[in-house]
Amino acid sequence: VPQHLSQQYGRLKAVASQDLGGSAVARLVSEMALHARQILGRTDRVQLTSRVVGKHYFGFRGEAQSRPINQALYVDSEDVLNRLLRAFRSGFRSGTAEDIVRSAYTTAYSVFAANDVYGVGRKASATFFEILIGHVVARVVGVSPRKKVRIPESGADLPTDYVFDPGPNSRKIHLPIKTSTRERAVQAWVHQLVLDRIFGTGVYRGVLVVAAETKRDSRTAEVIEICVPRQLQMFQSRVAEISRIYYLDPPQVYMALANDFPRVEVKSFGEALEELQALLHT
Amino acid sequence: VPQHLSQQYGRLKAVASQDLGGSAVARLVSEMALHARQILGRTDRVQLTSRVVGKHYFGFRGEAQSRPINQALYVDSEDVLNRLLRAFRSGFRSGTAEDIVRSAYTTAYSVFAANDVYGVGRKASATFFEILIGHVVARVVGVSPRKKVRIPESGADLPTDYVFDPGPNSRKIHLPIKTSTRERAVQAWVHQLVLDRIFGTGVYRGVLVVAAETKRDSRTAEVIEICVPRQLQMFQSRVAEISRIYYLDPPQVYMALANDFPRVEVKSFGEALEELQALLHT
Repeated sequence: VPQHLSQQYGRLKAVASQDLGGSAVARLVSEMALHARQILGRTDRVQLTSRVVGKHYFGFRGEAQSRPINQALYVDSEDVLNRLLRAFRSGFRSGTAEDIVRSAYTTAYSVFAANDVYGVGRKASATFFEILIGHVVARVVGVSPRKKVRIPESGADLPTDYVFDPGPNSRKIHLPIKTSTRERAVQAWVHQLVLDRIFGTGVYRGVLVVAAETKRDSRTAEVIEICVPRQLQMFQSRVAEISRIYYLDPPQVYMALANDFPRVEVKSFGEALEELQALLHT
Repeated sequence: VPQHLSQQYGRLKAVASQDLGGSAVARLVSEMALHARQILGRTDRVQLTSRVVGKHYFGFRGEAQSRPINQALYVDSEDVLNRLLRAFRSGFRSGTAEDIVRSAYTTAYSVFAANDVYGVGRKASATFFEILIGHVVARVVGVSPRKKVRIPESGADLPTDYVFDPGPNSRKIHLPIKTSTRERAVQAWVHQLVLDRIFGTGVYRGVLVVAAETKRDSRTAEVIEICVPRQLQMFQSRVAEISRIYYLDPPQVYMALANDFPRVEVKSFGEALEELQALLHT
């Protein structure tokens, strides 16, 4: 079974590098989610104790135990999931913000959990998530991203996270994607600073997409959320400006930063699709 | 024999992490250079065709062939080398700029070549070089470097190349160290930009140290130098300011940038020791 998973993973990377926003990526992502759920059907589901106020988490236990999964965001019903995956494959032309985030969350966490229970490395989950989110954004923006920028007048390329450039009359999108940030959050701001300096402030809009900040406490096995709101505020005021941070499972303490100062606009990923056009053109 | 090399390498990393400027590092570096020369004594020395004007290169051939070595900078005589290694272990309290660079060059390229002929990965050579140069600079500056900086008011750490902070009344040194830059040169400027933005321009002086830009052309086997002078000038004017670039084997086309505009001060590493004090205090 893990053999099959890793074959699909290899195919996904190949297909995504050809045309990230293409329907072949959507089909393969859907297949991988359904296949992951078959794998998870043969594992035990365990309820977890949550220290995150107002949120409930469970996990899957196979050879190893999965990361925590948010009960309210993970779709159990096959019928509902099939409907959501159809919406996903159609580029979410219909569907509410809640549909979008539950579809992306269930897809991502099915594959994360299947990888976790078979001890597949975290790199595979991170790459899957990057392709899933990159695909959704590529369809909305209407162009394929690149993973490097050409430094003007030098001919030199700088490696980047995904960058989307719809053309000369549009802003561009800088899209770092992470399953969680922890101590690596600063990287998104540092990369944004470099783009601001090389191309001018406001040319690239920074949009950071993160799955969640939850983890199981290694001592107590309870689900906790690791958040550093003052760090994000300092990065925002001292390093560079990130326009949006979208979470699949947004921490409450980060959502509150959207009403604080220095402002960090943290929202649910469900709102991203509507807002991206505005970010590009205003 | 490679077993012994890798044991020394592991010890060097451990000792360097304790006290980079300490005499134990100098002793171990000297031992590794002499040991590498024993290994190289059992290989063939081959003359190489040089396309680099005015410079002559040779290589060692064992199981594999070494990178090119500059004849004028590599010391053959055991007596001369022993004198230079004594000067190195004393922190170059005496010795000309030429002594300094030939000592560092011979030490570095003995170990690089021994690694090359036994197919030891380039990472080991890069780490050895970083410790060798870091040690010399740590003795001159008088403090141990760190490999991260604390972002003010956030409590967050940012990983960096070596940074030296002699105290509140002094500038600080940001010291990226590379065996060659190629397409990775921009990294030094990007890291400098981040330090300038977070701490203010002029707080950290950027000092990039590079061994050489030579390589063997894979088609013709001739020695060539890969230089991108206009790229360095654009990085210097558009990304951040690097105060000095010191080479063990400086490319002529880069030395010429010290008299051009945008200015990039490229010099021989032999001059670094005298200049570092001035960089810290003026």
